[in-house]
Amino acid sequence: MAHPHPEPQTDPDFSARFQSVRRQTEALAATLSDADATAQSMEDASPAKWHLAHTGWFFEEFILAPVYGDEVRFHDRFSYLFNSYYEAVGERHARPMRGLLTRPSLDEVLAFRAHVDAGMEKLFRDHPDACALLNLGLAHEQQHQELLLTDILHLFAQNPLRPALKPDVNLKTANLEAAPLTWDRFDGGRVEIGHSASDFAFDCETPKHETILRPFELASRAVTNREWLAFVNDGGYSDPRFWLSDGFARAQAEGWQAPLYWHLSDDNWHTMTLSGAQRLCLEAPVTHISFYEADAYATWAGARLPTEQEWEFAARDSDTDGTFAGAGYYQPQIQTDASQRYYFGDVWEWTASPFTPYPGFSVADGAVGEYNGKFMSGQMVLRGGSCATPDNHIRATYRNFFHPDKRWQFSGLRLARDAN
Amino acid sequence: MAHPHPEPQTDPDFSARFQSVRRQTEALAATLSDADATAQSMEDASPAKWHLAHTGWFFEEFILAPVYGDEVRFHDRFSYLFNSYYEAVGERHARPMRGLLTRPSLDEVLAFRAHVDAGMEKLFRDHPDACALLNLGLAHEQQHQELLLTDILHLFAQNPLRPALKPDVNLKTANLEAAPLTWDRFDGGRVEIGHSASDFAFDCETPKHETILRPFELASRAVTNREWLAFVNDGGYSDPRFWLSDGFARAQAEGWQAPLYWHLSDDNWHTMTLSGAQRLCLEAPVTHISFYEADAYATWAGARLPTEQEWEFAARDSDTDGTFAGAGYYQPQIQTDASQRYYFGDVWEWTASPFTPYPGFSVADGAVGEYNGKFMSGQMVLRGGSCATPDNHIRATYRNFFHPDKRWQFSGLRLARDAN
Amino acid sequence: MAHPHPEPQTDPDFSARFQSVRRQTEALAATLSDADATAQSMEDASPAKWHLAHTGWFFEEFILAPVYGDEVRFHDRFSYLFNSYYEAVGERHARPMRGLLTRPSLDEVLAFRAHVDAGMEKLFRDHPDACALLNLGLAHEQQHQELLLTDILHLFAQNPLRPALKPDVNLKTANLEAAPLTWDRFDGGRVEIGHSASDFAFDCETPKHETILRPFELASRAVTNREWLAFVNDGGYSDPRFWLSDGFARAQAEGWQAPLYWHLSDDNWHTMTLSGAQRLCLEAPVTHISFYEADAYATWAGARLPTEQEWEFAARDSDTDGTFAGAGYYQPQIQTDASQRYYFGDVWEWTASPFTPYPGFSVADGAVGEYNGKFMSGQMVLRGGSCATPDNHIRATYRNFFHPDKRWQFSGLRLARDAN
Amino acid sequence: MAHPHPEPQTDPDFSARFQSVRRQTEALAATLSDADATAQSMEDASPAKWHLAHTGWFFEEFILAPVYGDEVRFHDRFSYLFNSYYEAVGERHARPMRGLLTRPSLDEVLAFRAHVDAGMEKLFRDHPDACALLNLGLAHEQQHQELLLTDILHLFAQNPLRPALKPDVNLKTANLEAAPLTWDRFDGGRVEIGHSASDFAFDCETPKHETILRPFELASRAVTNREWLAFVNDGGYSDPRFWLSDGFARAQAEGWQAPLYWHLSDDNWHTMTLSGAQRLCLEAPVTHISFYEADAYATWAGARLPTEQEWEFAARDSDTDGTFAGAGYYQPQIQTDASQRYYFGDVWEWTASPFTPYPGFSVADGAVGEYNGKFMSGQMVLRGGSCATPDNHIRATYRNFFHPDKRWQFSGLRLARDAN
Repeated sequence: MAHPHPEPQTDPDFSARFQSVRRQTEALAATLSDADATAQSMEDASPAKWHLAHTGWFFEEFILAPVYGDEVRFHDRFSYLFNSYYEAVGERHARPMRGLLTRPSLDEVLAFRAHVDAGMEKLFRDHPDACALLNLGLAHEQQHQELLLTDILHLFAQNPLRPALKPDVNLKTANLEAAPLTWDRFDGGRVEIGHSASDFAFDCETPKHETILRPFELASRAVTNREWLAFVNDGGYSDPRFWLSDGFARAQAEGWQAPLYWHLSDDNWHTMTLSGAQRLCLEAPVTHISFYEADAYATWAGARLPTEQEWEFAARDSDTDGTFAGAGYYQPQIQTDASQRYYFGDVWEWTASPFTPYPGFSVADGAVGEYNGKFMSGQMVLRGGSCATPDNHIRATYRNFFHPDKRWQFSGLRLARDAN
Repeated sequence: MAHPHPEPQTDPDFSARFQSVRRQTEALAATLSDADATAQSMEDASPAKWHLAHTGWFFEEFILAPVYGDEVRFHDRFSYLFNSYYEAVGERHARPMRGLLTRPSLDEVLAFRAHVDAGMEKLFRDHPDACALLNLGLAHEQQHQELLLTDILHLFAQNPLRPALKPDVNLKTANLEAAPLTWDRFDGGRVEIGHSASDFAFDCETPKHETILRPFELASRAVTNREWLAFVNDGGYSDPRFWLSDGFARAQAEGWQAPLYWHLSDDNWHTMTLSGAQRLCLEAPVTHISFYEADAYATWAGARLPTEQEWEFAARDSDTDGTFAGAGYYQPQIQTDASQRYYFGDVWEWTASPFTPYPGFSVADGAVGEYNGKFMSGQMVLRGGSCATPDNHIRATYRNFFHPDKRWQFSGLRLARDAN
Repeated sequence: MAHPHPEPQTDPDFSARFQSVRRQTEALAATLSDADATAQSMEDASPAKWHLAHTGWFFEEFILAPVYGDEVRFHDRFSYLFNSYYEAVGERHARPMRGLLTRPSLDEVLAFRAHVDAGMEKLFRDHPDACALLNLGLAHEQQHQELLLTDILHLFAQNPLRPALKPDVNLKTANLEAAPLTWDRFDGGRVEIGHSASDFAFDCETPKHETILRPFELASRAVTNREWLAFVNDGGYSDPRFWLSDGFARAQAEGWQAPLYWHLSDDNWHTMTLSGAQRLCLEAPVTHISFYEADAYATWAGARLPTEQEWEFAARDSDTDGTFAGAGYYQPQIQTDASQRYYFGDVWEWTASPFTPYPGFSVADGAVGEYNGKFMSGQMVLRGGSCATPDNHIRATYRNFFHPDKRWQFSGLRLARDAN
Repeated sequence: MAHPHPEPQTDPDFSARFQSVRRQTEALAATLSDADATAQSMEDASPAKWHLAHTGWFFEEFILAPVYGDEVRFHDRFSYLFNSYYEAVGERHARPMRGLLTRPSLDEVLAFRAHVDAGMEKLFRDHPDACALLNLGLAHEQQHQELLLTDILHLFAQNPLRPALKPDVNLKTANLEAAPLTWDRFDGGRVEIGHSASDFAFDCETPKHETILRPFELASRAVTNREWLAFVNDGGYSDPRFWLSDGFARAQAEGWQAPLYWHLSDDNWHTMTLSGAQRLCLEAPVTHISFYEADAYATWAGARLPTEQEWEFAARDSDTDGTFAGAGYYQPQIQTDASQRYYFGDVWEWTASPFTPYPGFSVADGAVGEYNGKFMSGQMVLRGGSCATPDNHIRATYRNFFHPDKRWQFSGLRLARDAN
């Protein structure tokens, strides 16, 4: 006996990928209390609860509501509360006030997520054709996974009790040494930059285009805490000759003396991590530095930062098998292997490149067109992902970007210099 | 066979009074979530969790530790976290950062309180002689009970969902009308002001002293929302002639158009309460106004604010049986009875008097000497207590004080004028 | 043949007094360049040109225009430019922008003054009856004479070249010693405070009224720089126990370490004066301190500040023959004579009294009613006049007032204490 | 008859060029009063007196003192007062305090300039070999000539009297119409960018290097006020869809509704000019706009800003004979001729390019190395010069740069778009 009409089917790939990303998000927040998930430690950061809700809102707003209408919505005010910056979608709750939303509670936000999940599963069955923005939604949620971690780290760093999201974690590389820093030469020439393949990429990675690179050299690994300490001890933070003008003004105004979470305790340097305050691991890559600091270090070291084109050209044939969030350390590993180049994972690497549109770039229609284009001013490109980046999220063409004074991401640097 | 030594005994009065105040505090916070109790909505306000912990810290710091030593302490960092402004006791956690203390959790704070309670009960048995500061500690905790309520109201008012601490409360006087405003004449003359009796009073209420009052008149009740609305509708907020210079500058800078929590919705005035947003009750006393606004209203009305001496002289023979926190409304009642004068409860009444030391005032030795004296600059006296003041906390000599721009307390006004 | 009508006559007293005050103002500014007279060194200060123009505007606005109409005005925009705070008169040029008015030039402003002077002389002849506000206008101009000096001092203190308004001035008391500090006892009792005589006084000095004073003692002279230095060297500026809470917060925020113009040079204390930077005269009265500092010093010294009533009661029978602006030093003299009490001149003396209305005070009708009443909030009373106060401007009932953090006036202190 | 020893000779070219630039600077300031030359209207601007002195300081510091030693200096504090940002040279007077330097006077500053001039003439005779930095010094002074004009315009715009530096100037193109806007196509390809010739250029214009341009189109002239008004009237300033995120935030925070000096008067648009407030000339190029506004306009118009490489490539073969400061209008002329392209003069044209180092760029040794490199962060490139740029100062490779929110320069825009 034959079925005259096939059963509606969930696209197994859609559902599996969706469930995987969604569960990862919730796993990151699993040990947070309602209060942990509510607090906002600075305007740049958002509460964990907000990340959890906002990523659900993205699916509700851009995928479910266009198909099912407003009745699909979990709560009539959540669109107002959990829209981030999509001006086209309507008014938003003021960003600096996010930490005052003690209601809805964490449990209610998780219920909202479950409601969205159920809606999405229904959509996969009923309208698999309406899932054009699914990849974007999942990549968006992965980005917020990393922000959730860096924002919680910033919050816990403000607490004199130095709480840990994940206590008692030791680096697998603890007690090892960083590989010697060597230089790789690249001839450059006329090269292709950007993304064109059929798999997903953000709009800002396109279009693929040609550019010309002069011969250059890149360091074989990221700068370590030990190397950075030499800069600190040499008076690097107080000598304007090493600094960009805007950078020195900011460093002075905010009293920077070392990377963001470094602090002296009993004459030893410590740093705040997602496993609490720890003795600084000198062999590990330096992190939580701004672009301004990275640039000043490079000048002090007689080198410079790579451009994003140089970085991409060098990294394009490298494996992306560094240390990411999936490893569960949430701290950069020591880069011990002289045969590896560690372009991916551990720390985002600041580049010398402002975040600007590639030649021929254009934004998508509608609210999702606000995704990247409107941020192409005043921010600097970082490349390669970090120890807080979800596995499988990164690629050689991936462009992350932050304002040059931001320090709370897992941001580090790799040196470059002109070649003859 | 007789016991040669009597059993150590708890002073029944100490313990009963202590338990009563402590349980009232916890009752106020009973419906708060961990997140509600953690958030801080502005620098003036503190998290509920902080109020709960700080009031416990007071007993630990000033009563238990002097007797039992540091080993009595629940946690070695709590003194740093929950000291408010006692400079003599040591460093303090920065006030604007209190909302970031997601740990300790609400449950941990309640455990801290239980630990302190047990210590105090032991002290009552073992060292009833060491309880000299008990009355101060209880009065202090009662003050924080009121602050806990006003701070939660401010927090919930920032939330677009308008949560309620206590839903579904109706004023017992709803649908009644305020009594007509009449004037009482007082001859004044040479009068005594301040506290001298043997029962507890704050240091700032002493010493009792003589002053001279001219003949004056006081209104029979507080100004109502209906009367205030006439001021609003007459352009009172934008006409500098009614305002003190500093007051008008502040009103303009912050865009004041009405009392703090008033907002128009569908062309009707609403206000935020601890029972959520409600239609404004026009007959009830106006509240959540600054001294600057109170003074401007009085000028607009052709009157003035009473001095604190006039107020005390008028109220000293009045019962203190108004509406306080124990009634559970947390909103001022309509003052309906033309035979009552309502000096106590409902709303604190701004006076024309800066908070300065009485003639002959001196501060106590040690850290508790920081209690009131160091705030005798830039603040204005309020009298009479409010709907959020604990029952039995108030008296005619009681001097509350806030900076003249503060609006988040249950502050209102009563008019005065010179008499012939 | 006789004139049936007498010639209109200038009231000789009007004209003489008017000319005297007006010429004194211009004499103070005689050595200022156009640029000196234009710059504004902080929002609290005004350019000298502005003082010159504003005092002319007062006569034009309140005396000439009511009689002669708008055609008497020198320039149709000067009312906008040179109104200070009289809201009733219309819009004003934003206070912090006064230093950008490079036009009108100093010469044009002086021409404006001459125009007003001619108008006033005409008025004295034609309408001597219309001069009701003349005394107020002259007292007002005298107040601005002092402000002109203190504002120029502040301006010149910002200039690394340390210019002098009046170079090469030596104190007549240089090389002498301050008289020993002794205490005078006053019994107090029921006393009269305030002004009631028929000669001119500002509204805030009235009405005369009774108050009760406890027995008290006053120091025989002002605190000296040498005495203040002991406070500095004892860590007074960094010990919160001595300070009012608001005061310590301000001192920390602004990094106060010593009085406003003190600075160390080659390990010696110097101070800025209107004769340029000079070695600090240790015997002279300390000046350029805020109320907060004065109060902290008094606490450190085991004393307190006098109330304004105590001060007035003590000073009422004292001569007002101290050192004023007419002496031309613009620095406080050393108080050398143990038989004098120096209540008047040298330095304004901060009192413990907030500037509030006297019992029965009411403001005048119209714009001049804005003169003092609207400033009766947040400011503290100073008494006695200074080395920059015009001669004959001061009296025992005179109430000056500034916010408690202000330091650029010639403000000092005299100690008080309770008597048995 | 022969001269056995040739007279020492001034290099006629050195002296003539030096004198020409120096006299132009003074001519621009000729009608300023001492006060005009002293005031500083915002932190971005400097007083005219400061420009006059600082440009002299440059020659004294970098050319005269290395040859003649410190005794050549006019005043021992002028190096402190008139250093701008050369950290290597020593401390500097705080930038926001420049307007308080009422001394030295304008006359003293001019005497300082004469002193430097005499020193330079001596140097030309004695050490013509020591003039390596002369071209840089003259180019530097020309840059300050333009800043002097834009800073005076900003100062005068703050004055309600709307003074004019140069009254009664009419545009030679008044009453004419702008040429129609047409588009020029450029094929792009592999092109050379930057400066390599032997004549003077700033370091940031080098090294010459290759880049790849896609086909693009440029508008035939700058955007006019009439065209900009359509953007204003279409709600362009309040619609976030057209704006970069940082730009919209700034526009909202500062309340931008139109270009900097536009204001409505009697329902007509006026603008402030160096000839006072004038009716807005609709046909003239729009100016005094920020990069953010330029970018928003381009988005609104369905176009984009050109990159600096596109601009340079298009303009390299164009004459530089537009309207510059020498013409004396200090306002952009109407671009009337459809056969011209107006790349140079009238208004600086914002490009889409952040100010970053060219490939292979390196800074000079010593303090002059601070000239451009340290500003290569957060600023955007403008091209082509303006009506306030000195004649002969500009070239196709010239890179001007300002932060993207700055509006007080003569900045406008030319549209670009991708070509097929």
